[in-house]
Amino acid sequence: MTEETMTKWRILILGGTGETGSWFARYFKRKGFDVAVWGPSGKVEVAERLGVRYAHDMMKEVEESDIVLISVLIEKTVEMIQTVAPRMHPGSLIMDVTSIKSGPVMAMKTYAPKGVEVLGTHPMFGPTMPSLFGQTIIFTPVEGKTGKWLPIIQSLFESDGAHIGILEAEEHDEMMAVVQALTHFAYIGIGATLKALDFDVQRSRKFMSPVYEIMIDFVGRILDQNPELYASIQKNPKASAVRQTYVAECMRLSEKADSGDLEGFKQIMRDAALHYGGTHEALERSDRVINTSIRERKEKKPDC
Amino acid sequence: MTEETMTKWRILILGGTGETGSWFARYFKRKGFDVAVWGPSGKVEVAERLGVRYAHDMMKEVEESDIVLISVLIEKTVEMIQTVAPRMHPGSLIMDVTSIKSGPVMAMKTYAPKGVEVLGTHPMFGPTMPSLFGQTIIFTPVEGKTGKWLPIIQSLFESDGAHIGILEAEEHDEMMAVVQALTHFAYIGIGATLKALDFDVQRSRKFMSPVYEIMIDFVGRILDQNPELYASIQKNPKASAVRQTYVAECMRLSEKADSGDLEGFKQIMRDAALHYGGTHEALERSDRVINTSIRERKEKKPDC
Repeated sequence: MTEETMTKWRILILGGTGETGSWFARYFKRKGFDVAVWGPSGKVEVAERLGVRYAHDMMKEVEESDIVLISVLIEKTVEMIQTVAPRMHPGSLIMDVTSIKSGPVMAMKTYAPKGVEVLGTHPMFGPTMPSLFGQTIIFTPVEGKTGKWLPIIQSLFESDGAHIGILEAEEHDEMMAVVQALTHFAYIGIGATLKALDFDVQRSRKFMSPVYEIMIDFVGRILDQNPELYASIQKNPKASAVRQTYVAECMRLSEKADSGDLEGFKQIMRDAALHYGGTHEALERSDRVINTSIRERKEKKPDC
Repeated sequence: MTEETMTKWRILILGGTGETGSWFARYFKRKGFDVAVWGPSGKVEVAERLGVRYAHDMMKEVEESDIVLISVLIEKTVEMIQTVAPRMHPGSLIMDVTSIKSGPVMAMKTYAPKGVEVLGTHPMFGPTMPSLFGQTIIFTPVEGKTGKWLPIIQSLFESDGAHIGILEAEEHDEMMAVVQALTHFAYIGIGATLKALDFDVQRSRKFMSPVYEIMIDFVGRILDQNPELYASIQKNPKASAVRQTYVAECMRLSEKADSGDLEGFKQIMRDAALHYGGTHEALERSDRVINTSIRERKEKKPDC
């Protein structure tokens, strides 16, 4: 290790009193960083609970930090970057942890002075996850503004078992419009449908298949979490077109089924299967997930 | 055991040369039944492969069987019942294994002569499942036409670890319009969307979250299987209204997101969470499923 990596780095987490920010405050503290947090509503007690410093003089802390990590609400992110980035010192790093990358990365690129590095970061997990093990984190680096810090942060996260993916900010948003926004949207749509139909979810569990059990638990999982996070993921600039395609495809399928054109319905399935590729491997993987779920169900209810 | 249960029962599986029918032929053969199969396309070689008799004289076999199990295509089921039920002898049982119950049960009730018992049966699993362990099977018995056989078939299936649910045929169809038809519909809609967007599924796996991984594998799982089965499940007479509600709810959510009404979006989520109930237990169960999936991913790719 070089002398520099031996130094205790100072990291300031803006929005560090929120759920995601607190998760990272705990993480970097465990890793031996000198952590300070600041939040727009001034919750000093959260810093005390986390055992880290509260940045009463936020701008002074910005100037003195090695890393400034932005974890405020997505709609405040660009404004926050605009306020703090110009005050950072050469050799330091600004990173964000929002689920949309094009806007924040453009802002960091624009407002970070020469010599300040930029790392768009998207941790693809919620603050309920106990560790980085097996989780995916995407970096959207900026050419010419990422040299020293990317490998440091990457090996830090990888040492805890995270899988790092690297994408351009635009491509990230396109991919996440499907990977996150569409996935959540379809599940939230099911949740809203169960309510609209006044469907008895609890009773249905007695008559469920394992595939349904897992799906309905995923609906519940999403509904149990902070709606703010899920709403912000839908703000992905590429998500609107994906949602509209989904609604259109659902209508097309629905029309085939309603008109009794089952051949048409099956043809949509066959075309989708061909495009998907590797459906059989997917079936085998899902068999394992289902079998685990079946075993757990058995262990919990030995009488059924 | 009484003398009667010691007797080797004769079961005829109509459609026994198809995938589901063959599954039951193997099952009942293992259980010591005298199994005969018949199929509309006369595939005698399937019977040979299964090691069971082929019913060349189908109507004679119907008359002599203790159980006639209908496993033909859903659109042929009522016609098949109409043809064979009147020829069955008192004390025998007619059962079907289609995923819709109101039509077939009504037909069995109408055409089975006095003394012939009726058992609507819905095995909620596909023919890729290796055993009944942990699977759900729903019975929709008919009052006054189910006495002797229901407990026999129920304890047979339960002895292999199946979970039996009992419902009225109408209620079954209402529940399955959500449990099966809506689940599949949402997933097939995602598959069709991936094709419409020309989305690279394989590449996206590098950047996925575990929730996405499981969901996308479930999409592949459904697309990998016989489209006939999935199309027939959408023919559930109650499914059309459910599909329409789903499309309407997706449109409502989409409008909220597109117009920037994130408060409206979050309110739909909160209402759905309240109606769902037990979201936190769902989150905990899904955490376990996700953790299994993460461990499997790690074991398969030790380098990432």
